[in-house]
Amino acid sequence: MMRMISPIIFIFSLLLFSCHAAVQDFCVADLTAPDTPAGYACKKAANVTVDDFVFSGLGVAANTTGTFNKAAVTPAFVAQFPGVNGLGFSFARLDMEPGGVVPIHTHPGASEAILVLEGKITAGFVSSANTVYYKTLKKGDVFIFPQGLLHFQVNAGSTHVQVFVTFSSANPGLQILDLSLFSNDFPSELVAATSFLDIPQIKKLKAFFGGTG
Amino acid sequence: MMRMISPIIFIFSLLLFSCHAAVQDFCVADLTAPDTPAGYACKKAANVTVDDFVFSGLGVAANTTGTFNKAAVTPAFVAQFPGVNGLGFSFARLDMEPGGVVPIHTHPGASEAILVLEGKITAGFVSSANTVYYKTLKKGDVFIFPQGLLHFQVNAGSTHVQVFVTFSSANPGLQILDLSLFSNDFPSELVAATSFLDIPQIKKLKAFFGGTG
Amino acid sequence: MMRMISPIIFIFSLLLFSCHAAVQDFCVADLTAPDTPAGYACKKAANVTVDDFVFSGLGVAANTTGTFNKAAVTPAFVAQFPGVNGLGFSFARLDMEPGGVVPIHTHPGASEAILVLEGKITAGFVSSANTVYYKTLKKGDVFIFPQGLLHFQVNAGSTHVQVFVTFSSANPGLQILDLSLFSNDFPSELVAATSFLDIPQIKKLKAFFGGTG
Amino acid sequence: MMRMISPIIFIFSLLLFSCHAAVQDFCVADLTAPDTPAGYACKKAANVTVDDFVFSGLGVAANTTGTFNKAAVTPAFVAQFPGVNGLGFSFARLDMEPGGVVPIHTHPGASEAILVLEGKITAGFVSSANTVYYKTLKKGDVFIFPQGLLHFQVNAGSTHVQVFVTFSSANPGLQILDLSLFSNDFPSELVAATSFLDIPQIKKLKAFFGGTG
Amino acid sequence: MMRMISPIIFIFSLLLFSCHAAVQDFCVADLTAPDTPAGYACKKAANVTVDDFVFSGLGVAANTTGTFNKAAVTPAFVAQFPGVNGLGFSFARLDMEPGGVVPIHTHPGASEAILVLEGKITAGFVSSANTVYYKTLKKGDVFIFPQGLLHFQVNAGSTHVQVFVTFSSANPGLQILDLSLFSNDFPSELVAATSFLDIPQIKKLKAFFGGTG
Amino acid sequence: MMRMISPIIFIFSLLLFSCHAAVQDFCVADLTAPDTPAGYACKKAANVTVDDFVFSGLGVAANTTGTFNKAAVTPAFVAQFPGVNGLGFSFARLDMEPGGVVPIHTHPGASEAILVLEGKITAGFVSSANTVYYKTLKKGDVFIFPQGLLHFQVNAGSTHVQVFVTFSSANPGLQILDLSLFSNDFPSELVAATSFLDIPQIKKLKAFFGGTG
Repeated sequence: MMRMISPIIFIFSLLLFSCHAAVQDFCVADLTAPDTPAGYACKKAANVTVDDFVFSGLGVAANTTGTFNKAAVTPAFVAQFPGVNGLGFSFARLDMEPGGVVPIHTHPGASEAILVLEGKITAGFVSSANTVYYKTLKKGDVFIFPQGLLHFQVNAGSTHVQVFVTFSSANPGLQILDLSLFSNDFPSELVAATSFLDIPQIKKLKAFFGGTG
Repeated sequence: MMRMISPIIFIFSLLLFSCHAAVQDFCVADLTAPDTPAGYACKKAANVTVDDFVFSGLGVAANTTGTFNKAAVTPAFVAQFPGVNGLGFSFARLDMEPGGVVPIHTHPGASEAILVLEGKITAGFVSSANTVYYKTLKKGDVFIFPQGLLHFQVNAGSTHVQVFVTFSSANPGLQILDLSLFSNDFPSELVAATSFLDIPQIKKLKAFFGGTG
Repeated sequence: MMRMISPIIFIFSLLLFSCHAAVQDFCVADLTAPDTPAGYACKKAANVTVDDFVFSGLGVAANTTGTFNKAAVTPAFVAQFPGVNGLGFSFARLDMEPGGVVPIHTHPGASEAILVLEGKITAGFVSSANTVYYKTLKKGDVFIFPQGLLHFQVNAGSTHVQVFVTFSSANPGLQILDLSLFSNDFPSELVAATSFLDIPQIKKLKAFFGGTG
Repeated sequence: MMRMISPIIFIFSLLLFSCHAAVQDFCVADLTAPDTPAGYACKKAANVTVDDFVFSGLGVAANTTGTFNKAAVTPAFVAQFPGVNGLGFSFARLDMEPGGVVPIHTHPGASEAILVLEGKITAGFVSSANTVYYKTLKKGDVFIFPQGLLHFQVNAGSTHVQVFVTFSSANPGLQILDLSLFSNDFPSELVAATSFLDIPQIKKLKAFFGGTG
Repeated sequence: MMRMISPIIFIFSLLLFSCHAAVQDFCVADLTAPDTPAGYACKKAANVTVDDFVFSGLGVAANTTGTFNKAAVTPAFVAQFPGVNGLGFSFARLDMEPGGVVPIHTHPGASEAILVLEGKITAGFVSSANTVYYKTLKKGDVFIFPQGLLHFQVNAGSTHVQVFVTFSSANPGLQILDLSLFSNDFPSELVAATSFLDIPQIKKLKAFFGGTG
Repeated sequence: MMRMISPIIFIFSLLLFSCHAAVQDFCVADLTAPDTPAGYACKKAANVTVDDFVFSGLGVAANTTGTFNKAAVTPAFVAQFPGVNGLGFSFARLDMEPGGVVPIHTHPGASEAILVLEGKITAGFVSSANTVYYKTLKKGDVFIFPQGLLHFQVNAGSTHVQVFVTFSSANPGLQILDLSLFSNDFPSELVAATSFLDIPQIKKLKAFFGGTG
C-alpha cells in the first residue's frame, strides 16, 4: 500500500489544497484594515508566522513610578496582540506598588479573571443588586469579575503586586469611573446632577484628572 | 498624593491611550464599506460625533395619503441609522389612517415589538403550529412578534394610529406576502402551484401590485 | 385536485404534527424554573396564550412623587414580561417630573435606545476613550447608549417627561453608580481608595442612600 | 519509560477523570426535560450510546399516497433526532410524486440547503427585495434558501423525487403559508384585510385546509 | 380600494426601496475581499444571481484512482460555494472505493453529519472521555460527529461508497492526523516526545506522507 | 433635596427591587441541575457568596511524581469552578518536571492561551494547512492555540515548569491523542486502518495506556 508514494501524494494534496485555501483556523488582525462588529479583517494566512501567536510584553513590569495610583496596566488586547482577533479572549498585566490601587472601573465588553502572581490584594465587584463581593487574595488565587460590573483592586500588603488578567473578549473596553467623570469636558453641573456629588468635590477631582467644564 | 499632577497624568494617559486605540465600544456603520455577515465595517472613531447616536426621523408622521393600504412605515434600520450597527436592535415608526393595514409579512432576521402610541390596533401573528395569536391593543400596550413568523396590524379604531417598532437586529429584513408573490416576475403558474391560489386571483393581485408573469 | 378533502388533510396533518411538537418559535419564560445562561426554561406551548405576548404596564406613568430624583422607571424585563425570554430585547418606561434625573448608571448586559414621547431631555454617555457624547432631545428623537457604558438622562424642560426604553437583551441588568457605592456596606475607606472621593462626601451620600460602613 | 504502567496510569486517569466529568462534547436532548432558548437539557453522558448519534428514518420514502400535494416530508429535527441538540443543524427527507409540490413556506429559525437525490425539481425563494431566485435542479445539485425567506419546491419531471434537506438549526420551525392562513380560526375578514385576497378565495381554501372563521 | 393603482404603488415602492437597500437576507462571499472572524464581505446584492445559491459540483464522483486511501472528498465550503457565507453550514461529498478510508481527523470549527448514499461504511468518533462511538451504517443512515472530535469513516462493504456531508459552519476547517504529524517539517523528535510514537514509525510515515525533519 | 430620606429611599428601592429580581449579572452553576447547550442552570442568587467567584486550587503545584509524562494539569473548568458558568472562560495550571511533556491534544470547544510562570517550554500547534507553528518560550511569554487544533508543550529546560492556562469557554473539552487511540476499546485494526500506524506500534501503546482490542 505504501509503495507508489509520489503520484499518490500529489493527487491527495491537490484535493486538500483547494479546500484549505479558505480554512480559517485563526484570523490574525490586520490592524490597518477597518474593524467590524466581529473584529478586524484577517491578515493573509501566507504572511502569518509563529510570532503572531506570541506576546512577550507581559513578562516585564510596567513602570509605576510617578503614577497617581501607584499602579500600571500593560494591555495585550487585539491592538497590541493581533493574534487574539476573533478568538474570544485577551490579556493584561497589572503591577502595583505598596499603596497601589486600580480605581473602580468596568469593562463594557467582557468578563475578567485575575490571577495573583505576587503579593496580596483586595479585589471586589458590585452587582446589579448593589451587593459588594470582595475578598483579600493571596498568590495563586483566581477571582472573576462578571461582565460590565464595577470592580476594583488594591494592594493589601506591603510588597509589590503582580496580577495576570484575562478578558473574555479580544477587545474588552475599559471605563475608569474617575476618568469618565473628571478627565474630560463633562460639564460639572451635569456631573453633579447625575452623580449627586457636590460641586467642590467634582471641581477638585477635575483639577486633578485634567478635566474642564 | 494629589500634588504632582501633570507628569503623573501624562504617564497614566499614555498607558491608557495605547489600550484605547482599538477599544470598540461601538461600531457606527461606514455604509460606503462592504457589509459582512456581522454588519458593516466601522466608521473611524475619530469621526464619530454625538449625532451618530441620534435619529430624529421617527418624530414625523409619514405621508399615508394615497397609499393602497392607508399606512406607511418609516424605518430606522442600519441603512438609515448607522449608529445601530452591531448593537442588536433597530427601529421604525408606523402610521395608519382609519382603515389602514400593515399587510401580513415577516422579518426573516429579527423579532419585533410594537408600542401603541396613538389609536387602537388589532395585531397578531401565526405560529409554526398554525395557531393565530391576536389581540386588540390600546395606547401604551406592547406586543411582540417572535422572529420570522407571519404577522399583521390593522387600525381597529376610527382615528390615526401611531406605533413605535423595535427589532432585535440592526437589519431585520422585511418580506411582505403580497409583494413577494404579486409584485415581481414570479410566474403565475408557479405561484398557483405552490400557494394553491386560483389563477384569476393571482392575476388580479399581480395587476394591482405591478407584477408580471 | 380539491375533492377528496378529509382523508388527505388527515395524513398531512399527522406528518406536520410530529414535526411541530418541538418547534420553538418562542420560549415564554417559566419564571418558577431555574434560569440558565441563555434564559429561563420555556413554559409549555400548550399553556401559552396571546396574553403572554402583551405587556400593558407601560401605558401608565409611574408615581414619581417623593422619589429623591423626581423620576421613576417601570421595567418590562423578562421578570415582568416573560414573553421576551430568548428574543433578545426588553423594555421600560421612564417618567420624570421637572427637575427629574436618571442618575448615571450602566446596563452590563445590553445596549439601550430611548424614544422621547413627552418633554425635552438631555441624554448622554461616556465612552472608553472618556469622550462625553450628549445632546438635548425633543419628542420623537431616538438616542442610543452602547452596551455597558455610563449614561444618564435629565429633564431639560419644565414639563413632565415620558421616555420609552428598549434594551438589546431580555435581561439587561442595571447598575446605578450611587447605589453601587453608597447604598450598601461597601467600606467607606475602600470606596475612597478606589474612587478618589473624599471621605466626608462618601459619608454624606451613604447617609442619604442608606449605606453603612 | 514504559515499564511501571499501572500506578502511573492510575494517577493520570484520576486527574483526567475529575476534569472529564463536566466536559460537554455533546448534549443529547432529554426530551422529557424543559426546553430552553438554547435547546433541551442534556441526557446524562453515562446513558448516551452510539445510537443517539444515528438516525435511520430518512432511508425510507414517506408515503405520499393521498396527500393533497403529492409530497411528504420526514423530519429529523431535535424532536425526532435528539442527538442534534445544541449542534446547530438538523435534517429532513422530502419525497414527491410526479406533480408533487412543497407549498410555499418559511423556516423562521434556520437557513436550508437541499440536495437532489432523485428526479428533477424547480426550487426557489423570494428575497426581501421581492426578487424571485429559482432554478430547475437535477440530481446532485445543492440549492440554498437563506433563513426566514419564502421558498418552494416542485417536481419538475415525471418521476419520483427524493431530496435530502439540511437546516442550520436543531429546531428550524416551519410555517406553511396555506396552513397559516387557511387551516385555523384566523377570521376570514382579517385574512382578507391583511392579505388582499378575495373572501371567496379564502373561504374556498379554508374549506379545503380545514379552517374555520 | 383597488382602483387608483399606479400612483399608489409608486409611493409604497419608494418607501420600501429605501428600507431594502441594506437588507441582508444573505451575504454571498466576495472571495476577493478580506475574510473577517464572521466570514467574508458580501458581494453586492445587485450582482447576485440564482447561480450563487446553486452548487453542482457534488453531483460527480471525485477520482479516487491512485489515492493512497482509495477515497476522495469534494468540498463545498465557502471557498468553493460562496453562497453559504454567513449561513452556518457547508457541504462535501465523499467517494470511497472498496478498501477506502477517511483517515482519522477533526474539524476544528464545526460539527459534521453524514448521509450514506451508496454502500456500507463504518463511522465513528472518540469523545473527550475517550469513549469510541462507532457503528456500521447502511444507505439512508445519518450519523453525527460533534464539533472538534477525532472521527473516521471506512468502507465496510465491497462496493463503491458515496456519502453526503454537512458541516455546521461555512468554513469547518480540516485537520487530518497523519498529515498534521507526518506531512510537514514537524521535527521527528518533537513528534515522538508528544505522541509517544516510536521514531522508526514516525520516519516511515514521514517518508510516506512527504514530511521532513 | 436630601432631607426626607427614609420614605424616598423606600419608594426608590421598591421600584428597583422588582427589576432586580431577575437580573442575571452572573449564573454560578448549580452542578446538581442538568447541563444545557449554554451551560448549567444558575444557583439561586440569594445563595451566591464571594467564594463562588474565587478559586484557590491553582496556587499549589500538582504532584507530577510517577506520572508517565512528568506533568500534571489542575483544571478550573466549570466542574471545579462553578462561577465561570456562562462567562466564556475557564482556567488550568500545568506543572512539568524536567523532561515533562503535555502530549499532543485538542480542546474541541475552546481556544487556549498559556502564560509561562516558571521555566522554559517549547509550545506549538498544527494548522489545517498542516503548518507547524512552534517556539521556545520563557517566563512571561503568552502563546495562543486557536480552537480545536492539535497542540503540545514540552519542558525545554532543566527546571520545574509552571504554566497558567486560559480557555475561551467554561467547558473546553480535552482530547489527548494517545488516550483517544490507545486507552479504550478502539479495535486495533480500525486504529490501524484510519491512522496508518503499524499494528505492533498500536499494540505497544495500547498496552501502555491501558487499552484493549
